Amino acid sequence: MSLLVVGSLGIDTIETPFGRVENVLGGSATYISTAASYFVTPIRLVGVVGSDFPKEYIEFLENREIDLEGLQIVQGGKTFRWGGRYQYDMNSRDTLFTELNVFEHFDPIIPSSYKKTTYVCLGNIDPILQRRVLEQIEKPRLVVGDTMNFWIKGKHAELMKTFKLVDVLIINEAEARQLTNEPNLIKAAKLIIKLGPNVVIIKKGEHGALLVTERTIFFAPAYPLETINDPTGAGDAFAGGFVGWIARTDDLSEENFKRGVIYGSALASFCVERFSLERLKDISYLEIQDRFREFRELSKFEVEVLA
Amino acid sequence: MSLLVVGSLGIDTIETPFGRVENVLGGSATYISTAASYFVTPIRLVGVVGSDFPKEYIEFLENREIDLEGLQIVQGGKTFRWGGRYQYDMNSRDTLFTELNVFEHFDPIIPSSYKKTTYVCLGNIDPILQRRVLEQIEKPRLVVGDTMNFWIKGKHAELMKTFKLVDVLIINEAEARQLTNEPNLIKAAKLIIKLGPNVVIIKKGEHGALLVTERTIFFAPAYPLETINDPTGAGDAFAGGFVGWIARTDDLSEENFKRGVIYGSALASFCVERFSLERLKDISYLEIQDRFREFRELSKFEVEVLA
Repeated sequence: MSLLVVGSLGIDTIETPFGRVENVLGGSATYISTAASYFVTPIRLVGVVGSDFPKEYIEFLENREIDLEGLQIVQGGKTFRWGGRYQYDMNSRDTLFTELNVFEHFDPIIPSSYKKTTYVCLGNIDPILQRRVLEQIEKPRLVVGDTMNFWIKGKHAELMKTFKLVDVLIINEAEARQLTNEPNLIKAAKLIIKLGPNVVIIKKGEHGALLVTERTIFFAPAYPLETINDPTGAGDAFAGGFVGWIARTDDLSEENFKRGVIYGSALASFCVERFSLERLKDISYLEIQDRFREFRELSKFEVEVLA
Repeated sequence: MSLLVVGSLGIDTIETPFGRVENVLGGSATYISTAASYFVTPIRLVGVVGSDFPKEYIEFLENREIDLEGLQIVQGGKTFRWGGRYQYDMNSRDTLFTELNVFEHFDPIIPSSYKKTTYVCLGNIDPILQRRVLEQIEKPRLVVGDTMNFWIKGKHAELMKTFKLVDVLIINEAEARQLTNEPNLIKAAKLIIKLGPNVVIIKKGEHGALLVTERTIFFAPAYPLETINDPTGAGDAFAGGFVGWIARTDDLSEENFKRGVIYGSALASFCVERFSLERLKDISYLEIQDRFREFRELSKFEVEVLA
């Protein structure tokens, strides 16, 4: 099946208690498409960079069989840059700087070769742009969307319009609460389902992930990493692993969505092991299989009833 | 197998956004022994009340086949009283009043008929008293212990001595972090194992529970209740369900500890459905079995590997 990913491509500077990296590859579309490329190729990428975007990053994406026909390269423009610093507990981060650059006037144009795409993953960009992407695609089979606090607060009405077009919303715990003004996550998820998506996946960091549909609730554990070197991109790696698995299997059953959540969790757990895409770009299929099975062990128990 | 429970018995006043109850039955030993009584009877209770402790509460405990030979009734004394108020998100509570009364000078005396007890559950009391209980028991097969922030801060050295005698420590998320000064819960659990317990169970409220041993990590989901009427006693109901199951099956394997965590989670989920012990005192075996199976469904997924 074909998969289209839209989102940011950027150049990041990241500080964590375990180190600092400068001018490394970043951006939501980069993480999503790299994670998804383990499951389905080619990935159709839609995004924008400046002419300063390093050639090695282009080559990296091409080597992962990410189709760059939809990547706009603005001559003379500067690529989106972001700097962030994580605290010791890794749950909070401070943005050191955000330079939107060419991303500020990004207008996603879908090449004609992408118009018939079955699976679409909308990375965290302006909800107006997310809709503009969907308007150019002929009846996708599944639309997976992400968002963030910035749009929940600043473009609420636009976000609501986009939600009506999204089948699977992936959102983090704090954002789900903020969006619904409901502290109970199950209730929050059910409120989000009323806004449009049929499936809500809430990412809970070290507490795993929660999948909620009208009929099902599924808890996925988190992989018990003792050291997280860099949380950047974990949520996008999750989305990429999820949508990659669903696109590969072309199976929209609830059972398969659960497996997608586990593959998403697995890819996210690899992502945070090293800085930037250092780990995500170099995972073997055997490692992914092993980690999937380890997730199974983390929550497995044999039923023995009270007789 | 025999099970001894030590802890507080009290009279509670509780306010939540869903209601208020006054002078209801409370106390850690009460919740633990009531939950455990679904699995193993009689339960040997050790605690203290005043002569104001209502006769109906005595009868309730007796009807649940809780042996009260170890219950001291101080003539002319007043029973421990506690008042608390929960906020809307139910994760935090304010103590409105604490009257220790007869509990202040509690000296747990183990009746000779209790001295050969195979399973011991030490509810949250002064770690010195927890040790005094253990000194009077002949080689118990398993000691399960609970504690709280008050002792972690105020009686740290005594708590460390008690930990060396505890096999399974049940502790909540914030307390585990406080005890070890480590934000990562897996690391925190492993640090606690170095202090004595072989098994650490971290209660995470709406995020479920985590069981950690030297070799195993197990994530139990939380039961997705949309309305929690009263969180009081949930942790004690968890401990009671856990230790009750282990005592009933007399199986100290890691696989069985996992099932114990699920039974503990199930009893805790019933506990919070109504105020005080209103729900906990009246569960059918079929309801416990059904809920156990529902927990299985919440985290179950079929493996399908990336081929």
